[in-house]
Amino acid sequence: MTVVDEVRETLDRIRRDVCSLHAELVRYNLVVWTAGNVSARVPGRDLMVIKPSGVSYDDLTPENMVVCDLYGRVIEGAHAPSSDTEAQAYVYRHLDHIGGVVHTHSPYAVAWAARGVPIPVVTTMCADEFGGDIPVGPFATIGDDSIGRGIVDTLADSRSPAVLMQNHGVFTVGPTARAAVKAAVMCEDVARSVHLSYQLGQPLSIPLASVDALYDRYQNVYGQR
Amino acid sequence: MTVVDEVRETLDRIRRDVCSLHAELVRYNLVVWTAGNVSARVPGRDLMVIKPSGVSYDDLTPENMVVCDLYGRVIEGAHAPSSDTEAQAYVYRHLDHIGGVVHTHSPYAVAWAARGVPIPVVTTMCADEFGGDIPVGPFATIGDDSIGRGIVDTLADSRSPAVLMQNHGVFTVGPTARAAVKAAVMCEDVARSVHLSYQLGQPLSIPLASVDALYDRYQNVYGQR
Amino acid sequence: MTVVDEVRETLDRIRRDVCSLHAELVRYNLVVWTAGNVSARVPGRDLMVIKPSGVSYDDLTPENMVVCDLYGRVIEGAHAPSSDTEAQAYVYRHLDHIGGVVHTHSPYAVAWAARGVPIPVVTTMCADEFGGDIPVGPFATIGDDSIGRGIVDTLADSRSPAVLMQNHGVFTVGPTARAAVKAAVMCEDVARSVHLSYQLGQPLSIPLASVDALYDRYQNVYGQR
Amino acid sequence: MTVVDEVRETLDRIRRDVCSLHAELVRYNLVVWTAGNVSARVPGRDLMVIKPSGVSYDDLTPENMVVCDLYGRVIEGAHAPSSDTEAQAYVYRHLDHIGGVVHTHSPYAVAWAARGVPIPVVTTMCADEFGGDIPVGPFATIGDDSIGRGIVDTLADSRSPAVLMQNHGVFTVGPTARAAVKAAVMCEDVARSVHLSYQLGQPLSIPLASVDALYDRYQNVYGQR
Repeated sequence: MTVVDEVRETLDRIRRDVCSLHAELVRYNLVVWTAGNVSARVPGRDLMVIKPSGVSYDDLTPENMVVCDLYGRVIEGAHAPSSDTEAQAYVYRHLDHIGGVVHTHSPYAVAWAARGVPIPVVTTMCADEFGGDIPVGPFATIGDDSIGRGIVDTLADSRSPAVLMQNHGVFTVGPTARAAVKAAVMCEDVARSVHLSYQLGQPLSIPLASVDALYDRYQNVYGQR
Repeated sequence: MTVVDEVRETLDRIRRDVCSLHAELVRYNLVVWTAGNVSARVPGRDLMVIKPSGVSYDDLTPENMVVCDLYGRVIEGAHAPSSDTEAQAYVYRHLDHIGGVVHTHSPYAVAWAARGVPIPVVTTMCADEFGGDIPVGPFATIGDDSIGRGIVDTLADSRSPAVLMQNHGVFTVGPTARAAVKAAVMCEDVARSVHLSYQLGQPLSIPLASVDALYDRYQNVYGQR
Repeated sequence: MTVVDEVRETLDRIRRDVCSLHAELVRYNLVVWTAGNVSARVPGRDLMVIKPSGVSYDDLTPENMVVCDLYGRVIEGAHAPSSDTEAQAYVYRHLDHIGGVVHTHSPYAVAWAARGVPIPVVTTMCADEFGGDIPVGPFATIGDDSIGRGIVDTLADSRSPAVLMQNHGVFTVGPTARAAVKAAVMCEDVARSVHLSYQLGQPLSIPLASVDALYDRYQNVYGQR
Repeated sequence: MTVVDEVRETLDRIRRDVCSLHAELVRYNLVVWTAGNVSARVPGRDLMVIKPSGVSYDDLTPENMVVCDLYGRVIEGAHAPSSDTEAQAYVYRHLDHIGGVVHTHSPYAVAWAARGVPIPVVTTMCADEFGGDIPVGPFATIGDDSIGRGIVDTLADSRSPAVLMQNHGVFTVGPTARAAVKAAVMCEDVARSVHLSYQLGQPLSIPLASVDALYDRYQNVYGQR
């Protein structure tokens, strides 16, 4: 197999993965209409694959996914890429270990983001997946680097793979696009449970040492090795 | 193709569109039983196509959609049209650029409407789609022009394609029926997120200049050109 | 066709109707597991058809529906009938115009029922379908006439086809089983919207004359004639 | 049929049951991603069958269920068992009459658990299924006996088949895995209704004698005999 064939095969696989992962955003009610997207880095290349802008989830195919460079310029694809491409490209450019990024406006997370309040770690699921509070990034307008920079700066101070961007929505990251999707699913679930808990009083805090123990175990023991 | 054939073809296409768009109201849980509807203007004719009254979404077909004039009188169709026909006809009669109207009783929007409180623009999604607060129209009883007039008058003071009619529900408009359906979906999503946010405190406001920038970008850059 | 054949045919049709209407309770999330049921009167006979007790909605068939007399005694059927049979039989025995009864523990309606507070008529949907507040019946233990009596007595003071039984759930009635199912769907929708509205303030009231006008129109003009 | 054949057949049946019961957790939105599981005791053997760790519900098959002894050691299966295996094994070891255990992080139950507040018995459904308040067990970290011990100790003081583990989630038990799944479904439904009821005021209490009467009837009369 030539190098060109290998690149082709890799790109095709990632197009399929990115396309199909959007079904999880729909399944867990993290998105409505076209308001959310998944992207993945192309390993070993300065490229990413992302959803086309404003296209319905029903109409997504591996073929209409868009390949961009890490400045958000279209390299391959007949469609305009997601309007979040620049923000996600910034993340890939600055964080080498990140292989996938997800953006949603999931409702409970947006409720926290609109108040600019981090989600406190009061459930074991939050400790497991996020290793502490889910932090809030700055208010940033679309169209330049400010969203991407806000995500990267906020992630730097946290173990959380999720950032609530103020007044906006959620960005999650992971070593793979699938991991970033999982973080988006867990973020909304935690945002909801903790929201509900505060509605009738004050949740009990989890000791910091227990948060650490839960996080370490979940990252290192949970799942199949 | 004769003129008559062309009109037939246009009407058939719009019957199919209006019929199938109701599936989006069901998918996003904006309606229960038969309580919500979509209509579309027939381009270049003083006609509209609308859901029949009280018929289940499961039983809708292109054939049982009702063609009315812009005073709500049935022109073609074996069924009585939606009881919201007069209100929607009023909108088409007074707003030439409107090609579609949607009505729902979606629960979070109704919660704001029942208090008569506009939904404040505290999320970027609201700025993107509605360009400001989602306004409230007057309490108006069904059966004369007062709902239609309330919608048109309220839209005149706003960039929002959605109006919350007091104690009642949502009417959305758009250049096409599909755009009006999208506005109905986004309206409920915004109504819910902002409702949830207020439950635990005070959302942060978005500067007016940012609302304008978000709205302009979303209307002019988002999606496929 | 002999009289016996006719009765057979009627019973079979009602078995099919009652069976299939349970799918609407599931579709609108009014029930979990086996906690809710539909019954219908057999026209012209002192008989009713009802769900078997504790059988999953997936496993319902026209054949396992149970035919009872109006004292809840099994006339035809291999299964024990719903534990709500006595209450529903009481309704049929005392209200000749009622052809269907539905019982659910739908969550928002139960929230009002647990506080013993009627749902105030602050939305047009509530005025349309219920003609006023949705009333609360007494706390009544299962196993004798007290639930049935509570339903009948509460309905006597109201135009509402729904009663919230205190600390328990909803019973709805209608001229047909389908109408009773519709009332159950609308009751939960209204219970939810009004609940949400009160969470952030005080809904505006609807003038009594408008409630009457809405109710009259919806009962007499809405739908197909 | 040899003894070996019989054991094989029993194990295969339980693998199928445990596998398929996970669909109920998904159907009732009690779980997201891989965060919840069902197990069953193998009758007459010191063995249990449980979900593999971190495997998606879509990918569960009877074959990838894991057979463990009652100390959580894998006896048969190519996968690592659920990280909750030790806790559930503890339950089987200490409570001979328990045939099934379920664990979820269902959102309304977690909201109560995070505050450490039992769910008060203010609905007949709660009296029927749980025979009183749904109790809260201690905060316990995963990885030793403390979750299992917390469940068993808390169950000892209650008729409830459900325990809310503080800051964590729900564990339910039953004579069969199906009964434990039912308890998990009912627990979330009760957690939600009672949560909603408290949001707008104070639910009315149910007299203790009525709780007892409801519980006795539901346990002994409801369903098919």
